[in-house]
Amino acid sequence: MRVKRVPERGAYDRGQVDAILDAGLVCHLGFVHDGHPIVIPTLYARVGDGVYVHGSSASRMLRTLQGGVDACLTVTIVDGLVLARSIFHHSVNYRSVVVLGRASEVTDPDEKVGALEAFGERILPGWWAEVRPPTRLELKATSILRLPLDEASAKLRTGPPTDDEEDYDLPVWAGVIPLALRAGEPQPDPRLAFDLPAPRVPPRYDGSPCGQTGQ
Amino acid sequence: MRVKRVPERGAYDRGQVDAILDAGLVCHLGFVHDGHPIVIPTLYARVGDGVYVHGSSASRMLRTLQGGVDACLTVTIVDGLVLARSIFHHSVNYRSVVVLGRASEVTDPDEKVGALEAFGERILPGWWAEVRPPTRLELKATSILRLPLDEASAKLRTGPPTDDEEDYDLPVWAGVIPLALRAGEPQPDPRLAFDLPAPRVPPRYDGSPCGQTGQ
Repeated sequence: MRVKRVPERGAYDRGQVDAILDAGLVCHLGFVHDGHPIVIPTLYARVGDGVYVHGSSASRMLRTLQGGVDACLTVTIVDGLVLARSIFHHSVNYRSVVVLGRASEVTDPDEKVGALEAFGERILPGWWAEVRPPTRLELKATSILRLPLDEASAKLRTGPPTDDEEDYDLPVWAGVIPLALRAGEPQPDPRLAFDLPAPRVPPRYDGSPCGQTGQ
Repeated sequence: MRVKRVPERGAYDRGQVDAILDAGLVCHLGFVHDGHPIVIPTLYARVGDGVYVHGSSASRMLRTLQGGVDACLTVTIVDGLVLARSIFHHSVNYRSVVVLGRASEVTDPDEKVGALEAFGERILPGWWAEVRPPTRLELKATSILRLPLDEASAKLRTGPPTDDEEDYDLPVWAGVIPLALRAGEPQPDPRLAFDLPAPRVPPRYDGSPCGQTGQ
């Protein structure tokens, strides 16, 4: 029962890295603080050869650091439960990316606006144009870090379980239960003062028909 | 647009920590390796006052370390996209737990079997009894770490967006698009040699009816 880090169908190319990053929503960002590892979940968005993360979560621990900090940004998408004939070979199908590098704070206002727009696109494509853009004060209050994609690798597991050859004769069901993040019915803010249609659910969360989990 | 770490509806009690840990599937485990942070996704299972993780992923970096290593184990469950009237207040509804502590390798064979059973329960409740149990050799090849829950905290965001008071007059839809991990149709292993029924999808992934995302 392992999440295999040695990829059976590994993919280290940038195209694969980008595809996984662009399919995720929340990353887990690791820092070293006073010698201890800290891992926090936060929103992210890839733009070209870099990944932006919201620094607000990390800002307290980063406040004293100047010029960048070593970070590890990991994105994992769970694709299914892998049920094998032995407990040992149980696993999970997943796609993940690990980015190692030095995170530095974004100070250029235009780059910050671009990053915010990219975050918006991650949450709901096209929605940026509908909502109030950030004010200068809000931009100032927003802390954004950038991590280059120079050192990024993708790992994944797909397909049915791999059992020991002698176990294939065991009379036990084996296979994959696919899992995917799916959207429910939009819930309007109780304070919504206008009769407006809810936005279309992002296609990547719009599993259809029910029970099917194609990507 | 923030994943707020200062909880609006924070919960630091152990009951909340346990509930979130028991609702997740994959954790992100952080270590410090040669001074650099490393974050890897791996399966985990809570048993009482500890969390077990598969050490296989981490074993390479842990090989040289004796007697335990500082770790941060973070579990995040995404519950929805929070669409505000301004880009600045966009967010994500989520539940997360951060466990800080010293991870130590489990050496007692009985405790290892218990941990494997707990992993099995996380993947599919009750399935442990159906499949081939681990052999002594497999147990030996399985590396399991335990992290105590002494220093664990939960954070979460729920509910509608929180907009600036003057923005509530903006004619833009605001609210939450709920998200949840949902199971699709079980996919039998092509090498399945018996006509066996697929197991029941774990209730926590069995969203019903389609489009509803109750937990």
